[in-house]
Amino acid sequence: MNTAASPPLTVEVPPEPPDLHGLPNGVDLLTRLEGISADRGLDSLAKRLADLAVFVGGDLAALEDQIARLPRYPHAVGRGATHLLDLGGKRLRPTCVVLAARLGAGFDARALDLAVAVELVHTATLLHDDVVDLSETRRGVATARATYGNAVSIFAGDWVLIEALRRVGRCGMPGLLDDLLATIEEMIFAESLQLENRGRINTDRDAYFRVIEGKTAALFRWAMRAGGMAGGLGEAECRALQSYGIHLGIAFQAIDDLLDFAGKTSFTGKELFADLREGKMTYPVILALERDPDLRPVLEQVVTAPGNHALPEQAAARVIASLRETRALDDCLELARERSARAVAELSCLPPGRAAWALATVAEAIVDRDL
Amino acid sequence: MNTAASPPLTVEVPPEPPDLHGLPNGVDLLTRLEGISADRGLDSLAKRLADLAVFVGGDLAALEDQIARLPRYPHAVGRGATHLLDLGGKRLRPTCVVLAARLGAGFDARALDLAVAVELVHTATLLHDDVVDLSETRRGVATARATYGNAVSIFAGDWVLIEALRRVGRCGMPGLLDDLLATIEEMIFAESLQLENRGRINTDRDAYFRVIEGKTAALFRWAMRAGGMAGGLGEAECRALQSYGIHLGIAFQAIDDLLDFAGKTSFTGKELFADLREGKMTYPVILALERDPDLRPVLEQVVTAPGNHALPEQAAARVIASLRETRALDDCLELARERSARAVAELSCLPPGRAAWALATVAEAIVDRDL
Repeated sequence: MNTAASPPLTVEVPPEPPDLHGLPNGVDLLTRLEGISADRGLDSLAKRLADLAVFVGGDLAALEDQIARLPRYPHAVGRGATHLLDLGGKRLRPTCVVLAARLGAGFDARALDLAVAVELVHTATLLHDDVVDLSETRRGVATARATYGNAVSIFAGDWVLIEALRRVGRCGMPGLLDDLLATIEEMIFAESLQLENRGRINTDRDAYFRVIEGKTAALFRWAMRAGGMAGGLGEAECRALQSYGIHLGIAFQAIDDLLDFAGKTSFTGKELFADLREGKMTYPVILALERDPDLRPVLEQVVTAPGNHALPEQAAARVIASLRETRALDDCLELARERSARAVAELSCLPPGRAAWALATVAEAIVDRDL
Repeated sequence: MNTAASPPLTVEVPPEPPDLHGLPNGVDLLTRLEGISADRGLDSLAKRLADLAVFVGGDLAALEDQIARLPRYPHAVGRGATHLLDLGGKRLRPTCVVLAARLGAGFDARALDLAVAVELVHTATLLHDDVVDLSETRRGVATARATYGNAVSIFAGDWVLIEALRRVGRCGMPGLLDDLLATIEEMIFAESLQLENRGRINTDRDAYFRVIEGKTAALFRWAMRAGGMAGGLGEAECRALQSYGIHLGIAFQAIDDLLDFAGKTSFTGKELFADLREGKMTYPVILALERDPDLRPVLEQVVTAPGNHALPEQAAARVIASLRETRALDDCLELARERSARAVAELSCLPPGRAAWALATVAEAIVDRDL
């Protein structure tokens, strides 16, 4: 664990990133994280990421191949569905399936189906979320809804979900499809809670955690269970993997929250302040408001600014200053570190070896990502 | 069959319908159809509908009970999901499950689960369609999207679908869940085709039939198969039931097309000319345009009129006149009759008895409905 080191929240990188059409896929992500770790002097983590890239490289290439072979329907909904998938992405949820399977008997055709399925479920939620949030860009390019319209994005999300469920169904693993349906239900209900709280400037930590556990962590949990079951692991081991998934998901989301203020748009593919402008209370904002109540009217100004207008500059500067001065950004990073550590701790009762080592690497690297 | 009789397209009814809060549920629908048949002098059909109401009354009451017992989540998405279900509806798809099951071993708890599921799938599509079509009213009251917003209607549709799939999954009938997923895929692709053709004034019958087979008939087909399997019927019998479902669905849609021009809003819960204003080429419009090419600019005027403005009256009157003079409405009714007859013909290779008789009654009565 690198909790002792305190790297800056944004990493110095060349102003022009290397030839990124959309975001890199899974293996490229690992290479990129490796570079970041090396830049930060985390040589041991960089070395482990290089090892991870070799370990899962073939599996992630098989995943990309499967995604490329998805049915290509020429109609609007077909194009909308593959629009987002073809832009790549971090492929972090499929990586969870791969590593959990490799912790057991290995990554076979069935595990590959599940890895594709989890990426499809994630994609389906993005296609619907983009309509709900009226998002213009994702992964650095126009969203499906901006390109093909809201209707296409809704139906494309529906189709991608059906395609995912079909794959999980054909794996025939007892309880796994039911568990995915329950997971998707959790995701939907978390979205509902987020919708209801939208635009409410408050410091409700409980609501925050309920939202991110449902919206983000639940699918990581399912990915770990799916991989574990595909690898033939037992109930106790799958339970540990699921706990790993929940902690990893929360750590991942905490970093996402940070990147809303400290990310580089060219890497994340998202505008800064996007969450806040959509009226979403993220963890650093909750902390800053708790410690600096005068921030409230400024937050209100940002949240109520028309979506198609430039961010009110002075207000944005005031938010950033508060996030720094109250140490809200640092404590959000600390939350990610703590959950990352808890994820790693869950691995102690699992079979040791290269896969467990790789899962620990993922949990640590996720804290240092800038995309 | 009542193909010899030629009842008027709209039925004389009292100006104020009897205490309808939303639309009546399944059994009420049968009672209402019975009244229509009696009014039209179709005494034999009226008598058979009365018998049908007795035959399926208990099963449809069990369905309503299950729908009333669906989880009632207090959040926005939960309210949006049950908003539409609680308004009742024709429950025609569940009636298909009931009768197909009764053709076999009977309507048991598993068949009930499937009957609820098919109504949920139908509801999920309506929740998404209403967002796509920006619909303000359905079943005579404000849509979920008009009441709770587009976001809630999208997520509510997602949840209702998940709840449906969960029920079909727990029935554990081989291939049935996969068949439902394939059916939903067909429905989505038909929506895609309809979206692409939207606003295009053309006489493409082939596209029309592809849209309605996917959008409407496919789910009737699945309902018949689901009921047949739950009743323990064999493959050949299920195939005949599926063909019945397809023909019934097309007949149902043809009457829906008619009701866009000839329906009574207080019964259908839909505004007149709604399909045409949404740029959807329905069967009577296709026929009228084939026979009266001068209708084109008039149709264009209706289609391009702003959705929130009153229907251009002169254009509407011209469309109605053309639909009558070209006999487009009559031929659309004839399409419904022909498909109804083909549905009934499919029953010949099925076990005779009260259930087969009831299925024939449904196919005939569907042609005479006014809601």
